[in-house]
Amino acid sequence: MKAQIIIIGDELLNGSIQDKNISPLAKWLDQIGFACDQVTITKDREDLLLPVLKEAWDKSDLVITTGGLGPTEDDITKQILAKLIGTTLAPSDKAQQLVEKLYSRRDKLWNPELNHYHLIPKGVEVFDNPKGFAPGLMIKKDKRLLLATPGVPRELMAMLEETLPDIIKESFPNMDNGPKVITFRTHGIPEEKIFGELCPGLWQELSHYGKVSSLPQVIGVDIHILLKPEFRKDYQKTKETIVNLVQTKALKDYIWSNEFITLEEAVIKKASEKNLKIGCSESCTGGLVAHKITNVSGSSRVFMGSLVTYSNESKKDLLRVSEEVLKTKGAVSEETALEMVQGTKEKLKVDVALSLTGIAGPLGGSKEKPVGTVCIGEAFGNSSESKQYQFFGDRALLKERFAQTALLKALKIIEKL
Amino acid sequence: MKAQIIIIGDELLNGSIQDKNISPLAKWLDQIGFACDQVTITKDREDLLLPVLKEAWDKSDLVITTGGLGPTEDDITKQILAKLIGTTLAPSDKAQQLVEKLYSRRDKLWNPELNHYHLIPKGVEVFDNPKGFAPGLMIKKDKRLLLATPGVPRELMAMLEETLPDIIKESFPNMDNGPKVITFRTHGIPEEKIFGELCPGLWQELSHYGKVSSLPQVIGVDIHILLKPEFRKDYQKTKETIVNLVQTKALKDYIWSNEFITLEEAVIKKASEKNLKIGCSESCTGGLVAHKITNVSGSSRVFMGSLVTYSNESKKDLLRVSEEVLKTKGAVSEETALEMVQGTKEKLKVDVALSLTGIAGPLGGSKEKPVGTVCIGEAFGNSSESKQYQFFGDRALLKERFAQTALLKALKIIEKL
Repeated sequence: MKAQIIIIGDELLNGSIQDKNISPLAKWLDQIGFACDQVTITKDREDLLLPVLKEAWDKSDLVITTGGLGPTEDDITKQILAKLIGTTLAPSDKAQQLVEKLYSRRDKLWNPELNHYHLIPKGVEVFDNPKGFAPGLMIKKDKRLLLATPGVPRELMAMLEETLPDIIKESFPNMDNGPKVITFRTHGIPEEKIFGELCPGLWQELSHYGKVSSLPQVIGVDIHILLKPEFRKDYQKTKETIVNLVQTKALKDYIWSNEFITLEEAVIKKASEKNLKIGCSESCTGGLVAHKITNVSGSSRVFMGSLVTYSNESKKDLLRVSEEVLKTKGAVSEETALEMVQGTKEKLKVDVALSLTGIAGPLGGSKEKPVGTVCIGEAFGNSSESKQYQFFGDRALLKERFAQTALLKALKIIEKL
Repeated sequence: MKAQIIIIGDELLNGSIQDKNISPLAKWLDQIGFACDQVTITKDREDLLLPVLKEAWDKSDLVITTGGLGPTEDDITKQILAKLIGTTLAPSDKAQQLVEKLYSRRDKLWNPELNHYHLIPKGVEVFDNPKGFAPGLMIKKDKRLLLATPGVPRELMAMLEETLPDIIKESFPNMDNGPKVITFRTHGIPEEKIFGELCPGLWQELSHYGKVSSLPQVIGVDIHILLKPEFRKDYQKTKETIVNLVQTKALKDYIWSNEFITLEEAVIKKASEKNLKIGCSESCTGGLVAHKITNVSGSSRVFMGSLVTYSNESKKDLLRVSEEVLKTKGAVSEETALEMVQGTKEKLKVDVALSLTGIAGPLGGSKEKPVGTVCIGEAFGNSSESKQYQFFGDRALLKERFAQTALLKALKIIEKL
């Protein structure tokens, strides 16, 4: 079954906002069994949107649009959908009832003068928007389905969870929605070396099972195998076979997970299993490590906190880093990272502590310690140590690299404990 | 001048990664004067990619592709570009020289057996990739330009800054690249009320100057005016006129910026101007406030740190929140937020302190304090206070809402000091 996504909105095409809908929508389609071959982002202008919609609607089993359902004059999706199926907008009792319900959920009264949520293309069905006011629209024709959803990410996410699964089940009762991708997450080896030097022939071996793709990430490379249909049937067995195959190769030393999970999820999972308390202190990453960890629901069971000591004063006051070390070695040094992590372990009373101090740039670098330098400390039991690294990238990427490198260290420690 | 972006890669269409290139590319095109009407994301399969490329190349002055230039077998952009212009891949001396240079920058030796970076479509030019190994490709025809760039965000970003500006200048010497959008960032009023109730007629008044669009954000609504060409010429004067117009409307009380900046940028800017030191403590946001603030280069001048106290123990140990308050009022209470912010101001020795404690969910809610409850404390001078709020959303959105609400509070305080 083929699906296409159409993302509507000027703001995405002048860079004023970054899209947040494509990735969860694509993931959802993949999970429920649709192959999404194409995504188009287009302005809310009839001359652009209508041809894109027509082509997608002709070629796909399922078309999902996001955006343009709001109350202001730049929201024209409903009008264009009406043109697509050769009708016009008209008041709909069903839509009005739904809108009144959506408003009453928030203890508000719907006022038809402020918006036209009750006007929809004649004959089109509406469906629930669990977190917003604009209903979704649904067009069915010859076993094909078009769903118009809101562009606000929280509204779309709620629809993906609460509203759309039943609609899809009803329209496409025989979908194949089992897992079909196997992923290896690696670190510490560049893409071209994996298949060219470390494991020549592995790409071909894996291709027996499905389409292989290789994807550079922030601190390593992901390898995905999209299984052929005959290998999807017994997914667990196929996975075991492929994991065993890869275990015989030199690549095994570079793999940190056989699952498509994040480092922070892996850290929280392992720490929870072993009932270990963890904590950190951060200078250059400015809270990013803690933010990542606390994005994982359930992290509060094992994560005690992070001391974001962005100034020398706070390193001294909160972590007892010595004036002496800061003066002679500098805030970005293995010595400071070591004192930070020792202070962290003590203050937060944790089993495993991390510390990070570095230069994320663009300012603050020197010849001896250029932008991208980071010192990471780790402490567990009675041992503590620290190490300096050098990375490339802009401020945002460096923060990300520093944070992921520290999380990988935490994972390795926890796995051994 | 019309531009189109084509993003190539399977991984974007099964949701395994989120695109990070579209937004900066679109912003860059907008800044250098191109209207980007459409973005297409497509798989690296010839039957999908070639027709998309053909259509874009026929219709646009500038086409930019990202992705598919890497060393593994799923990277087929070069092959498809060769088909587009009716040629084949061949070794190129220029490409080889460039690749050798790119490798030597990282003190590495290029090995032609590991990749085929030196093979490019016959007659196509190559250009520098400041942060990677795969050169960019450039096709020129009848004053039109096609640029094939890497998909790895850091490599693309470096090209946008370092390589592409000169290429664009040479190919399109007469671009209009001045500013052309005026933005108002608001908070605290829903989209439909702004134009329907608070300021009826404002949309039409603003439309005199250009295309108006309204865009719900996390804690408010952005209003953009894309100026008509006649109003772009004297941008500063037009901006003054429009800002003055909006100042006469009731909307003025809901605007927190006339610039397209983030809350954290506004906070750091104002705090730097007034030479104020700031700091915070975070429970439910888990470091997000600090992460946002430290994303702003130069934040180290004013931001002292954040105490991410994710456990009750760390709230007591690090911030001196009393056992009594935690027991009787709970960790999520105005009382705890107040003690947290007082402890923060003292420990971090700052002029303005914030604290946040709340429930980001999905677990941890109760009838009295459902998921989405947050208490935010603020302290400056001798005064401190705290207040409880209630928001909707999933864990990620709630963290974002909590953080932005706190940053808005900080901005308001700093503006008054």
